[in-house]
Amino acid sequence: MAGNELGIIFRIMSFGESHGECVGVVIDGCPAGFPVNLELIQNLLNKRRPGQSQVTTSRKELDKLHIRSGIFEGKTTGAPILMEISNEDTDSSKYEALRNTPRPSHADFPAHVRYGGNQDFRGGGRFSGRITAGIVMAGGLALQLLDKLQGIHIGSHVIQVGKVKGNSVLTVQTILANREQNAVRTADLKVAPAMEAAIQETRSHNDSVGGLIECIVENLPAGIGNPFFDTLEGVLAKALFAIPAVKGVEFGAGFRCSEMKGSEHNDPYRYDGEKIVTTSNNAGGIIGGISSGMPIVFRVAIKPTASIGRPQQSIDLKTKKNIEMKIEGRHDPCIAPRAVPVVDCIVAIVLLDQLRIAGIIPEVIRVVPPT
Amino acid sequence: MAGNELGIIFRIMSFGESHGECVGVVIDGCPAGFPVNLELIQNLLNKRRPGQSQVTTSRKELDKLHIRSGIFEGKTTGAPILMEISNEDTDSSKYEALRNTPRPSHADFPAHVRYGGNQDFRGGGRFSGRITAGIVMAGGLALQLLDKLQGIHIGSHVIQVGKVKGNSVLTVQTILANREQNAVRTADLKVAPAMEAAIQETRSHNDSVGGLIECIVENLPAGIGNPFFDTLEGVLAKALFAIPAVKGVEFGAGFRCSEMKGSEHNDPYRYDGEKIVTTSNNAGGIIGGISSGMPIVFRVAIKPTASIGRPQQSIDLKTKKNIEMKIEGRHDPCIAPRAVPVVDCIVAIVLLDQLRIAGIIPEVIRVVPPT
Amino acid sequence: MAGNELGIIFRIMSFGESHGECVGVVIDGCPAGFPVNLELIQNLLNKRRPGQSQVTTSRKELDKLHIRSGIFEGKTTGAPILMEISNEDTDSSKYEALRNTPRPSHADFPAHVRYGGNQDFRGGGRFSGRITAGIVMAGGLALQLLDKLQGIHIGSHVIQVGKVKGNSVLTVQTILANREQNAVRTADLKVAPAMEAAIQETRSHNDSVGGLIECIVENLPAGIGNPFFDTLEGVLAKALFAIPAVKGVEFGAGFRCSEMKGSEHNDPYRYDGEKIVTTSNNAGGIIGGISSGMPIVFRVAIKPTASIGRPQQSIDLKTKKNIEMKIEGRHDPCIAPRAVPVVDCIVAIVLLDQLRIAGIIPEVIRVVPPT
Amino acid sequence: MAGNELGIIFRIMSFGESHGECVGVVIDGCPAGFPVNLELIQNLLNKRRPGQSQVTTSRKELDKLHIRSGIFEGKTTGAPILMEISNEDTDSSKYEALRNTPRPSHADFPAHVRYGGNQDFRGGGRFSGRITAGIVMAGGLALQLLDKLQGIHIGSHVIQVGKVKGNSVLTVQTILANREQNAVRTADLKVAPAMEAAIQETRSHNDSVGGLIECIVENLPAGIGNPFFDTLEGVLAKALFAIPAVKGVEFGAGFRCSEMKGSEHNDPYRYDGEKIVTTSNNAGGIIGGISSGMPIVFRVAIKPTASIGRPQQSIDLKTKKNIEMKIEGRHDPCIAPRAVPVVDCIVAIVLLDQLRIAGIIPEVIRVVPPT
Repeated sequence: MAGNELGIIFRIMSFGESHGECVGVVIDGCPAGFPVNLELIQNLLNKRRPGQSQVTTSRKELDKLHIRSGIFEGKTTGAPILMEISNEDTDSSKYEALRNTPRPSHADFPAHVRYGGNQDFRGGGRFSGRITAGIVMAGGLALQLLDKLQGIHIGSHVIQVGKVKGNSVLTVQTILANREQNAVRTADLKVAPAMEAAIQETRSHNDSVGGLIECIVENLPAGIGNPFFDTLEGVLAKALFAIPAVKGVEFGAGFRCSEMKGSEHNDPYRYDGEKIVTTSNNAGGIIGGISSGMPIVFRVAIKPTASIGRPQQSIDLKTKKNIEMKIEGRHDPCIAPRAVPVVDCIVAIVLLDQLRIAGIIPEVIRVVPPT
Repeated sequence: MAGNELGIIFRIMSFGESHGECVGVVIDGCPAGFPVNLELIQNLLNKRRPGQSQVTTSRKELDKLHIRSGIFEGKTTGAPILMEISNEDTDSSKYEALRNTPRPSHADFPAHVRYGGNQDFRGGGRFSGRITAGIVMAGGLALQLLDKLQGIHIGSHVIQVGKVKGNSVLTVQTILANREQNAVRTADLKVAPAMEAAIQETRSHNDSVGGLIECIVENLPAGIGNPFFDTLEGVLAKALFAIPAVKGVEFGAGFRCSEMKGSEHNDPYRYDGEKIVTTSNNAGGIIGGISSGMPIVFRVAIKPTASIGRPQQSIDLKTKKNIEMKIEGRHDPCIAPRAVPVVDCIVAIVLLDQLRIAGIIPEVIRVVPPT
Repeated sequence: MAGNELGIIFRIMSFGESHGECVGVVIDGCPAGFPVNLELIQNLLNKRRPGQSQVTTSRKELDKLHIRSGIFEGKTTGAPILMEISNEDTDSSKYEALRNTPRPSHADFPAHVRYGGNQDFRGGGRFSGRITAGIVMAGGLALQLLDKLQGIHIGSHVIQVGKVKGNSVLTVQTILANREQNAVRTADLKVAPAMEAAIQETRSHNDSVGGLIECIVENLPAGIGNPFFDTLEGVLAKALFAIPAVKGVEFGAGFRCSEMKGSEHNDPYRYDGEKIVTTSNNAGGIIGGISSGMPIVFRVAIKPTASIGRPQQSIDLKTKKNIEMKIEGRHDPCIAPRAVPVVDCIVAIVLLDQLRIAGIIPEVIRVVPPT
Repeated sequence: MAGNELGIIFRIMSFGESHGECVGVVIDGCPAGFPVNLELIQNLLNKRRPGQSQVTTSRKELDKLHIRSGIFEGKTTGAPILMEISNEDTDSSKYEALRNTPRPSHADFPAHVRYGGNQDFRGGGRFSGRITAGIVMAGGLALQLLDKLQGIHIGSHVIQVGKVKGNSVLTVQTILANREQNAVRTADLKVAPAMEAAIQETRSHNDSVGGLIECIVENLPAGIGNPFFDTLEGVLAKALFAIPAVKGVEFGAGFRCSEMKGSEHNDPYRYDGEKIVTTSNNAGGIIGGISSGMPIVFRVAIKPTASIGRPQQSIDLKTKKNIEMKIEGRHDPCIAPRAVPVVDCIVAIVLLDQLRIAGIIPEVIRVVPPT
């Protein structure tokens, strides 16, 4: 209701601020009896972590996972799971100057109105990209459940940085394998150097650049989702907009469908042995708000990082005067690479919840199949 | 939870099927004491209604609004408001043949899996575009409350049909005035004839074509919405995907932001007298999930109508064989024009709910200002 | 949120007013594929109906069930089910006089404040006991699902009318068989005449009298419910307070537990063959908010009908003066007998929802066992 | 959904286990800008704390409040507030023996079924009374907001211990002043010694005893609550059943109403100057689910502590044999005195949420009146 909860049955509440004591999440409704692989969650946190490569901010955080409730003897208990990381490298000194000076395209001004000026403004406070660490913790758990119990796999990667465009890669396995071979997290290895160069060039001009992330979900069974107000597209889109830089979401052919004819766009059905498939997938695996059994395919537009090291026009809320400002500090020239694991994770959270609602993943996990 | 409800405090539940007895909505949480203009709702229903022009289906429905509870002596009482229209011109005979033959890019197959084959398949049943009439009824009420109580105005129009692209029109007043002057409901009057021609040409080939709708919201105050999981973008997007043909949603610069630099995309703040504005609006009026006070601007991609009068490849679920099929019946060659009032209405429902949550529109309306 | 919805996955929205056009309910989230026995629902409506015996009001209503969506070819489709009855015998003339005169212990005054005087006051409007007909429609469906799919049975009966106290009857079968043999709906056939006499005597003095209803649920499996904020006691109690006259709810030993020692109150476990039972059931089948596998047992206190034919002290909201008033019209001298089917039904709605949440009753019913 | 959340707009998620690392709560939707009195919350925690007097368990816990997010510069920010206490004095050794031996009238067995044996069983785990500390933290904040912003006061006290009955005390001020003068927390000072003696006598027999708590709420405005499924009685009752020992809830005359005539039970209206009052309050301040403006009055039945130091009949879940068991450890002979602050706090949480929903307490607190 106030923006910090996601899900119906597998439900999370996020907490923490960029320069507060900690950032984390409480998960309610996780099935009991699931043996949790903590290392896998830590690995995902490491991918989201700042300071991991030349194309990210230099803020140094260990982001060491700490689980404080809900897991006992290595398994989920069915009780709420509290996961958190500490904030260590918080240099708040530069933010005091920004208290009354909203940074363009940051949440500062809307938040100032929404919370009457009481929000913790340091480092973006509750609006910092750092808050997505909570998504990664909960999603790191959800990914395991989807994989082990249903064989569902999720893979995102960067397919565009500025004007450098990559190609779609069609299997999750390839996406996951390829994207870790380069700092921009694209699975199109041919364009990776050009993307990296584009980011470095942007950084050298104290500027930032936008990007595009594509995500594929394999093995989601047909029949998941709902018509109308809780479409699979809708619940995914709502969750994806939680990633601070996302400004657009499209499924399958997406915005290209505006130009298409029905005879081009319609996906014909065929039997592939016993399995029902479509010979194209312009729907992106979702029709009428419900999964068709084909891979889920969607893209999210990532805006250029709002923090840039150039002079910008803004205002002083106290003196009520127009001013010029410059943002100090450490920032990502392109946030898309670090957003990639966050996309995977938020999709996992949404799909796990959908499978819980559908009764496909039960309240108690009695046997976990080997990988 | 099962897809038929929207909203938290101003909350609606949708019901009805395309070829059942009726289609409608129950609204819970409407403020008490508001004098309802029924004619305005009927007018909106008329704009959504089939058979209204050369570019729509020829199904004949009066779609006469019937209010069955919740309004007393001309005003809302605070009790649930049941609104419905009857289904009259239902010719179900042609659908029996489709029972085991999922139409490509229709919900037939996913629905078959989701409901175990028990869904009412006639005319698309619960997945018909006709179900959006419930959105128009509830939204027709929400639009009045937003207008009268807060001066908030919403206007959508078609800015693309196939390859024919129109231009953005920047005020709601112009959008609402212009779009009713042509059958395609574009506010760019210069391209209207080309759009109409494109639709007619598509129809003549027994085909359909996609489109793009742009929407502008004026006078939404700054500070509405939430960070993170209940962003204004997210709640709008989730609701917009309720319109059966929507496959993408973007705000402000939207997908174009992938190519942009931060120095281009950032919207600088300025004082315009006492009012705080941005000199560009690439954010589409929403930053950090919260309204900035600038107009809300977004676009939705509308896929080509799935029903086309050409032979298509499909399957027979009974014989488990691949077949060729042809869809009979009456269909819209381009659904975008009829979706325009639905976009207005669903946005109104979402925003009214947000203003109720924020405590800005109260539980009891004591005085309604004159228009 | 505004009081008219119940449930999470099996979710209902209630609508209608006492003297409006209709009263009913929309059910969302009912499993698809269930063959509905309409006669059973009509029979339950008949038990709740006014004018059925000497101990009830003489308002004449057929309360004929009308299903308007969500059922196709005799089975649930998974779409929202709209059920309603018409209001026929509405004599609103006597209520005009009451517009500004709140009837003592009726909702008139709180509703006047809550809705700013805009509520439909005729016949109690939205606060009439007649609104419970919607509970009976939805519950009549839920009872069938619980019976056919899980063998769960629910039986309530009157165990006290004024100072006449009956005894607990311990099997649902006996409760259901016995209670229909007398107008007061008690299963303790020995005290039935004394209870009837107590009601008739009260009526002869233009007065009303309170009562007590006991309910037993058999075959609810162990492990249903939740700790803490969604205890089985809590969700049942919240739903039971929807019955307008309920002022108290107690489970198992209930308020008697205040006087008890732990050594008396604790229910020892024993193996009964393979089955785990307790040798007493002071817990009423619920411990820690979760079912134990023993029968659920609870009681609800029913206040005397607020409408009595005697002069009473009240106020005039217009003149702001103290006045004496007298209520005309037709009223139940004791509402407990008519509340009995409503208790059964609301319990069924709550338990069906709990079994849906737990994944025990699935989204699609593929085979319904014979009775 | 899984039992760990309460509220709609002022919404809390509870976490922690009795012998885990910590116990606490995350609060979402707290109005921004409220200066928090931490000492007041600590004082309430101290009242709930074990080991505080001769009539409570001897477990030693400091229960020192730790706030980890959501408060900045002494005020609420509008972001989620994470509050917790550590578990220090956890002696889990005695619980290993109980792993397969459900304690009578404890949640052990239902929890074993519900969570498939994966629950943290040490000290009752998630079902321990210690979890109510989270209610006290959130409620300690809610009490401040109700007091400072609306002058609403809440006071509970013990009015019965076993067969020793006290009298109702009618003002919150007297309740709060008197109850702290004795270890049983009754406001009826005359019966306090007899109640204390009853508890000591029970303890000397290795037994426990039940009790009754009465609560009064002053200054809740008329018009708060809802008809039907979200009655004020219902939402309060659901929340009160979160307190592990509660087995019954009654409002106003409560179960006594079963014996009453309408002419006795009805509460006549009168003008008291401009204010509308009732000359009796059998309704307990709630009619039709909505507050009447009179004090809210209710009672909760508290069962005798399930842990007693006597041999009891139980089962061994592993060997599937009947056994005799004895519970070691430290337990409260009567839990009612420690439940008193929990009742106050949970009522505060519910009422604050209701006032948030009604729009009476806003999203941003701009000025806090002095006490």
